[in-house]
Order: sequence, then structure tokens, then C-alpha cells
Amino acid sequence: MTNSAILRVQCPDRKGLDSTLADFIFRANGNILHFEQHQVAEVGLYLARIEWDLDGFQIQPQDLARHFAPIAERLNMKWQLAFSSDRQRMALLVSKYDHCLMDLLYRWHSGELACEIPLIVSNHPDAKRHADFYGVPFFEIPVTPENKAQAERRQRELLESHGIDLIVLARYMQVLSPEFIAAYPQRIINIHHSFLPAFLGAKPHQQAFERGVKLLGATAHYVTEALDDGPIIEQDVIRISHRDSVQDLVQKGRDLEKIVLSRAVGWHLENRVLLHGNKTVVFD
Amino acid sequence: MTNSAILRVQCPDRKGLDSTLADFIFRANGNILHFEQHQVAEVGLYLARIEWDLDGFQIQPQDLARHFAPIAERLNMKWQLAFSSDRQRMALLVSKYDHCLMDLLYRWHSGELACEIPLIVSNHPDAKRHADFYGVPFFEIPVTPENKAQAERRQRELLESHGIDLIVLARYMQVLSPEFIAAYPQRIINIHHSFLPAFLGAKPHQQAFERGVKLLGATAHYVTEALDDGPIIEQDVIRISHRDSVQDLVQKGRDLEKIVLSRAVGWHLENRVLLHGNKTVVFD
Amino acid sequence: MTNSAILRVQCPDRKGLDSTLADFIFRANGNILHFEQHQVAEVGLYLARIEWDLDGFQIQPQDLARHFAPIAERLNMKWQLAFSSDRQRMALLVSKYDHCLMDLLYRWHSGELACEIPLIVSNHPDAKRHADFYGVPFFEIPVTPENKAQAERRQRELLESHGIDLIVLARYMQVLSPEFIAAYPQRIINIHHSFLPAFLGAKPHQQAFERGVKLLGATAHYVTEALDDGPIIEQDVIRISHRDSVQDLVQKGRDLEKIVLSRAVGWHLENRVLLHGNKTVVFD
Amino acid sequence: MTNSAILRVQCPDRKGLDSTLADFIFRANGNILHFEQHQVAEVGLYLARIEWDLDGFQIQPQDLARHFAPIAERLNMKWQLAFSSDRQRMALLVSKYDHCLMDLLYRWHSGELACEIPLIVSNHPDAKRHADFYGVPFFEIPVTPENKAQAERRQRELLESHGIDLIVLARYMQVLSPEFIAAYPQRIINIHHSFLPAFLGAKPHQQAFERGVKLLGATAHYVTEALDDGPIIEQDVIRISHRDSVQDLVQKGRDLEKIVLSRAVGWHLENRVLLHGNKTVVFD
Repeated sequence: MTNSAILRVQCPDRKGLDSTLADFIFRANGNILHFEQHQVAEVGLYLARIEWDLDGFQIQPQDLARHFAPIAERLNMKWQLAFSSDRQRMALLVSKYDHCLMDLLYRWHSGELACEIPLIVSNHPDAKRHADFYGVPFFEIPVTPENKAQAERRQRELLESHGIDLIVLARYMQVLSPEFIAAYPQRIINIHHSFLPAFLGAKPHQQAFERGVKLLGATAHYVTEALDDGPIIEQDVIRISHRDSVQDLVQKGRDLEKIVLSRAVGWHLENRVLLHGNKTVVFD
Repeated sequence: MTNSAILRVQCPDRKGLDSTLADFIFRANGNILHFEQHQVAEVGLYLARIEWDLDGFQIQPQDLARHFAPIAERLNMKWQLAFSSDRQRMALLVSKYDHCLMDLLYRWHSGELACEIPLIVSNHPDAKRHADFYGVPFFEIPVTPENKAQAERRQRELLESHGIDLIVLARYMQVLSPEFIAAYPQRIINIHHSFLPAFLGAKPHQQAFERGVKLLGATAHYVTEALDDGPIIEQDVIRISHRDSVQDLVQKGRDLEKIVLSRAVGWHLENRVLLHGNKTVVFD
Repeated sequence: MTNSAILRVQCPDRKGLDSTLADFIFRANGNILHFEQHQVAEVGLYLARIEWDLDGFQIQPQDLARHFAPIAERLNMKWQLAFSSDRQRMALLVSKYDHCLMDLLYRWHSGELACEIPLIVSNHPDAKRHADFYGVPFFEIPVTPENKAQAERRQRELLESHGIDLIVLARYMQVLSPEFIAAYPQRIINIHHSFLPAFLGAKPHQQAFERGVKLLGATAHYVTEALDDGPIIEQDVIRISHRDSVQDLVQKGRDLEKIVLSRAVGWHLENRVLLHGNKTVVFD
Repeated sequence: MTNSAILRVQCPDRKGLDSTLADFIFRANGNILHFEQHQVAEVGLYLARIEWDLDGFQIQPQDLARHFAPIAERLNMKWQLAFSSDRQRMALLVSKYDHCLMDLLYRWHSGELACEIPLIVSNHPDAKRHADFYGVPFFEIPVTPENKAQAERRQRELLESHGIDLIVLARYMQVLSPEFIAAYPQRIINIHHSFLPAFLGAKPHQQAFERGVKLLGATAHYVTEALDDGPIIEQDVIRISHRDSVQDLVQKGRDLEKIVLSRAVGWHLENRVLLHGNKTVVFD
């Protein structure tokens, strides 16, 4: 496995940005593995992701940020630095539907998702057996209208004490408070079981059934304060027909939700996602 | 080419409906080619489409309705009878974007769509050359806010005088009046360039671009008074990315719109579409 | 859950077949839920699947075959009768790759696949923990070139003693002997990790990588003596690119294989698949 | 419309290649619009496509090759330079099936394909009317077993005298000689109506029908001496079922062939395709 550094930047577009980035790496004897850039013409924005091999690289990982900071400052860059050896710490929140949970656990266990999973939190006890099977600590925190604030406080304590980088709502059916969301900007991923912005809110399968659509969708997005309106990371659809009942949609939707969510989570963990405005750029 | 009859029925569900239909045909020595039925459990509705070979059938086509009527009455059936030898008369309405028009004309000319096209109506002169190439009469009826009522009157005279069965809005950018729509129930098909119910109304590609969706959609539907809310016949999507400008969406959307609209039109012409409530059943 | 009977038939095409089937059911007061038929024009073959509610049906399930047999004989029908209450007994054979195994077990456990799974057989010990988790008996039968005949004898004893109806090769990497295959006609389903007939045989992902295809496929088929040439039940593809290594294909292929195999198994268990020649008809 | 230069390179992989390319452009005051690169690890090959705005660029287009040549030589690069203002000269060869021809002509006319079409060559007279409609010179050159060599000589004279850069076989049903093919390396694109490498050779739809596949494919590839074995540029599939006759496959295949071929042609014209071994890299 290659040990690499990944730099994501965004800044006002100008000439020489690619050259500046590539030079910075070349001068320290780095070998660029992937270099992707994109200009958002409407707003004059430049975004790039650059990944290079650390083998033979003459700047030590711990010194890299310090070396790059002057360049970033000069070019007015927002930037994030990561290493392929980093393993982000991902918490899974789940309610009763456990298909996304199971799917993420299996992918994690098989090495497809390079992260740690320090804990699973649920408002129901059902998922405990899966957590146990994979050896992941499980915390049941029931949520009621009465104890909601208290439950959330407990959740946030757990997430903080476990040093969580990314929260995945793997069919977690409770709405998070604005304070919770604000504490994890671009770090909470939700799976919504419709093709957003169609069928926002509750019971999207029922809505889809009633509207008579011919395709069923699923959408993975970052959670923001506006319900189901955060930046979309990934979407997909499958064909349905008049023969499908709401229950059939639920069943067919499971495969879709698993795949869409796992792609979004994978891309996030590989530091492929950049955000501008309410939109994402996902670099291949 | 087989000469066949197609019967579409819907009625309250009860035992023996399949048997009654199949018997009716068998007793007159018909050979059933396709038989599809569907129950809408929520509302206790039975729908069926049955197609049979008229070769050797002992009821003459012109007598068929009279023979079937008593059965339909007894079972409280809504029904429609058609013959594969019927060629529906389809009018195409188009504005400036001519890709759907061209596509339908080509499919018609190559025998893929079994219908007559007695006329093309447009509020712009541009499509005339395509009409001329295929030898279809072309009528330019400019539409302005001032002359809208008058223009529509002229359109409807033309449609009536040409005995039009089906009106296809092949990217026709004018909204039809409720009276116009009411005159052609389940007989006007529109193509909307989004995955409905996402991005209703104007400029769906611009809306899709701004929302940052990862798939671009198109929807063919029957036109009803509620804008972009009629029964959906067909939908499909293609993948887009951050690299696509609004103009790219327009271009990519063209292929999608052509295919989705032509499928819907073909199914309508083959008498495969049944309507219940605001939903369609499309029999294979 | 409706208690229903499912009859699949095939016979030389002639007039009145639909009527005969529908009448048989109606006369005994059955309510038909699904009725699909198909003619294979090239060979004059009629195939049908008919499912009806047993509630109020005046022939007892155990007498049904006896009542239908004379009709079938008169019309020269091959036929199979099943009941929705039947739960077929499915054995899973697996080697080291366990993604299809896990997927089938999860679907079975969540009620998506209505069957019994009396045993899992593997030539490796790895899958035992998954078997244990789901409470399914697990038998490890190592296979070497030397013990192959003996190992297969042991497998077949297990399958027979457990009354197995359907064998699913969930990425089982050993070739079965012609005798084994002949003992389970149209009752062994395999998943091949390519779009057959492209890339038959060993290492299809490597073959696909070398040929530079732009889509990766998977195929579920009944196993016959001709390697990878049995009747295809289901296929699907996903897009790949030059960025994908062979290892990426392996990972992307997993999702595809799971979905394609589970669809094929589901349709088989729901008695939707009919076989004619080397082809399948899958009724919706 | 931006006036840009596009440089495609491939060379042995080494450190500093991105930096060298980006610097070359930056030093002459160019603004990079797109920069994509890829390493083929198995063979230590580096490939890149870089596109930059010529506005303000201090090297004149006619001098660019001379300035870049020393860099390319030092790094052992194969390279191709193009300009967005170049309009390649594309010849269309067609037989009786005219759907791909019509589609390409329409896309060209609507500005989707930025090229010249100096001529259409066919072994049948049928396509002349389409050529006339779009004002493209049409040459009918009948091909028989007897006159094949002579016909091909006439074709090649026409192609040469019209300064053709790219030849598109838009369902041209004659096999080209090795000499013809050798004269246009990576400059002849064919559409094959199957998912290659399945169903090579004649009548792929018939082959697909007989094998009972569940998806129908189409493949656009560069023509090489090995029949249907050239580098694949693009492929796609659509779902088919037991209800589809060979004739239905032909009809459904038309939409697929049009889209797959037009994508491949578009990418070629935009200088997005690089070739290594028998595989393509298509940069987004």
C-alpha cells in the first residue's frame, strides 16, 4: 500500500495554480499519483485535489502543513491536508432499519472502507447483535420527545470522547438539532430514500408510490440545518413499475440506499469531496 | 404483420374476470397473443390488456364492440377497443428545440411508430424544413401574450379538422389553456426535462445545476390542468458531474428527452397505457 | 400474507389455452392474482405462470395436482405446481469470497427470501462465523485434486439428507462433476463475475481489465454441463474506467454479484423462472 | 468560445512530469483549463491531457510545437498537439442502416460535434437524401466481391483528396482491407452492435437472441486488423427480455448504437482519447 499525502485546495482562480502546486511537490522530490482540478467559472473558483507518494519525499509529514502554509496564504487558499495512512474515526447512528449499518460494517471489515469505527449509537437495542459480531462498542440511547435534548447531549459526549471525525446516519430516523449539526460541518452524511429534491421529508417511498414515478431514488448528502437540503454527494435510481407496492419499494430501495451511502462514505474517507456553496465536487 | 384486436378494461376486482375475458375471445375462435392484468389492491381495481389475433376470429371487427358491451356492462367495466391496423393520427407541437421532433419523425418514417402524422404546428418557422423533408404539412402559428386565445383557437381548429387522436408536445414551450387540455383527456403527452416531481416549472436544467444533483432526468407525462403534475408514463436519468455546465446539461438532456418521449409515445400508440387516478399502468 | 397457488405450464401453442387455465381456476372459485403468458413464436411454444388466491378455493391443495392432471395431459403440458406457503430448502456453497453468502443470509434473515437454509457447505473454514451468526449449520469439506470425487460424494449425501431443493453457488470456486449437475437439473444457480458470454472461464476480471472494456458485468445462470454456458437468469453491469485496477474491479464487482445473484435466487424461489431450450423466461 | 490548446502526452513515468507540463504553460502566461493525468502502474507509463486558454499566451500557436519539442525529447514523450479552433475533417461511411448517420449529421448540424463533414460514402444509394438535406457531398461506391479492391481504391482516393482526419463507420457493413486500416491508425471508429468481446462477427443481435442474454450492448472501437478486437472507446447496454424478438433487438439497439457511437466520436474530436496497447484512456 502506497503511503501518500492528499492536499485539497480551493481559491480564487488565477494563472499558475497547477504549476505552483506541482512544483511544490516536485521540488521536495514527490511523485504525483493523482492530480485533478476544476474551475467553477460562474464564481471564478479553482478547486484541486492532488495526491503524491511520500516515498522519498523530503518534507516530513509533520512539517508539511508548515511548509505549505505560506503558499496557501499568498494565494488565498482554503486547504485540507490528509494522509492515506490516516484512518478517520467514523461513528454510525442507526434506528431500526439495519441494512445500511450491516453493509457499512461488512465493507469496513473487508477493508473496503479505510477507517476506524469506534462506536455505534442507536435509539433502539436491535442493532446490538451486529455491533457485537463485528466487535464494535454499541450504545443504546433511546430518544423521546421529552428526553431529546438530554439524549443528544449524551450522544455528543460520546462522539467527542471517542474523537469522531465523521458521523454517518445509516437510516437514523431522528432529526438532529441545529447545534449538533453546527458542531460537525461537512462531517455528517445522511442517506435519504428518494431522489432529492423530489420527496423531501417523511415517508418518501409512500410519496413516490402515490405520485406514480417510474424510478426509485436514493440520495447521500451532507447534513445541514435545512432538512434534506444539504450538498448532495451521490444519487442513484432503480426502475420500478405498477406491480410494486410500497413494501416492494422499501425492499428495492434497500439495495439502492446501501450502495449510494457506501459510495458517498468511501469518497469522503478518501478525501475526494470538496464543497462549494451547497454543491459538491467529487474527484475521481 | 399480425392483424390483432386490443382490449383494455378496468373495473372493480372480482373473481372470474380473467376467465370471462379469455372465454369471450376463445368462444369466437380467437388466439390470445398477450394477456396482462393487474390488481390495484388499495382500491380494489382490476386492469387488463388483452390482445388477440383476428385471423379466424368469428366476430367481425365492426361488430366486436356490440358483442362485448353486455359483458362490460354486467361487470361495470370501463373499456377501450383498438385494432393493430388502426393508425392513430398524431399531431406534433414544437417550438425552437427540434431534437424531439426530429427523433419522432425519424422513428415514424422508419416504421417504429405506427401512426399517421397529419400535421406539425409550431410557434416558430424553424421546424418547417424538417416537416418538408418528411412531407408533413406544417403550420406556423405565432403565440404572443396578446393573441394567445386566438392562436389556440386556430390550433384547435386545425387539430379537429385533421381528426387528431394524440397530441405530442415535442418541447412545445407554451402552456395550454384548461379548455384545450380538457378537450383531449389522456391524449396530450408532454416531455418535461427533469425527473418529476423534482424541478417543476421553468428552466429545470438551471434548477438541477443549482441544486447540484448527480443525475439528470426527463419525464413523459399526460398533460392535465395541474402544471407538470399529470400521470407519468416514463422517466429516465443519466449521470452528470461537476464538470457539466448548464449548457452541457442541455446537450446531455437531449438524448434523454428523445428516448423517454419516444418510449411514451410508442406505448400510447400500442395501447399499452391505462390510467387510474393520477397514475399509469404500462403493460409490457 | 396471501396464501396462493402458482402454476407454471408450457405446451404447444393453440387457441384457448388462457381460457382453459383461467376457467379451471374460476370454476373452483379461485381469484387470480397474476396471470402472465408468452408465446415463443419460432417454436410454437406457449408458456404461462398463473397465481391465485387459495382463500375460498374449492379444491384442496393436496388434491390440486390430481384435478389439473387431465387438463395437462390433454394439452400435452409440462407443468409445475407450487404454493406460496412452500418454503424451498436452499443450500449455499461458498469458497473464500463471502460477500454473496453474507448478502443472501441477510436477505433471508430479513424476510426478503422466503426459503429455508438448512446448511452451508464450504471448502474453507472462513465462512463458519457467518453461518454461526445466523444459526445455519456449517459443513467444511476441503476439496483437493486427490479427494475431489470423495468430497463431492460427501456433499451430495449432505444435500440429499437435508432434502435440498435449490443449490446456490455463492462464489463457489470448484467445478462440479456432470453427475452432480445432472442430479439437480435447473436447481443449481451460479454467479459468474462477467457479462456472459464474454470472459468465460477463469479470472474474468483479469480478462476484462486486459481487454479494456468500459462496463463490468455479472451473470446468474443455471448450471449445466457446459461451463458458464447454462441458461441466463439475470445479468447486470456497472461502469468502470481506466482508473480502475483489477483490484478495483474485484471490489466494484462485489456489489454487482450480490445484486444479480440475489435477484436470480429470489425469482427462482418465487417460481417465476421457466426454461425452454437454453433460455429462461422470467415472469414479472 | 474559448480558444484553447490541447496537449496529449505519454511517456515513461518519472517524478516531475506534472510540474514540467504545468510550468511550460505557466511560464508563457497560459491559464490551464483542464489537467488530467493517469499512471498505468503495470507498465510504468504516464499519460496526460492538458488544455489551456490561448488568450494572453505568449507563444504563438504555430510556434508551440517547436517550443515543446525539446521537452518532449528529453522526457521521451509521444505527444499530440491540437487546438480547439481546429475542425477535424470527418468522413462518414454507411450502408443501408442510416440511424447512426442521421444521428451524427443532426449532432453535427446542431453544433454538438465540432468538425467538418466533407463527404459521405456509401455502397448503397439510400442515404443520398439525408446527405442532400444537410448539404454534404455524397458518393455512392457499390462494393461487390469482384470490385472490392477497386472500390476501396476509389474510397481512399476520395478520403485523401478531401483531407480526411477521421473515418466513422456508421453501420458500414463491409470489411476494410488491412492496407486501408493501416493508412488510418487510430483514425477509424466503428460501431459494433454487441457488448464486445461477446458476439463478435456477423449478426450479433441474432447471436444475443439465441444465447438469451438479458442486456443488449453496443461498442464503439478503433478499427484494427483484428476484426472487432480494436481498442474500445465506449460501450453501453439496455435491458431486454423474453418478449423481445430479434426485430425488437434491432430496434432497441438503434438507440444504443447512436448514443455509444456519438459519444466515442465526440470524445475523439475533443482529443480526449489516448491509446496504450489495445486499450484507451478517455479523459473527462
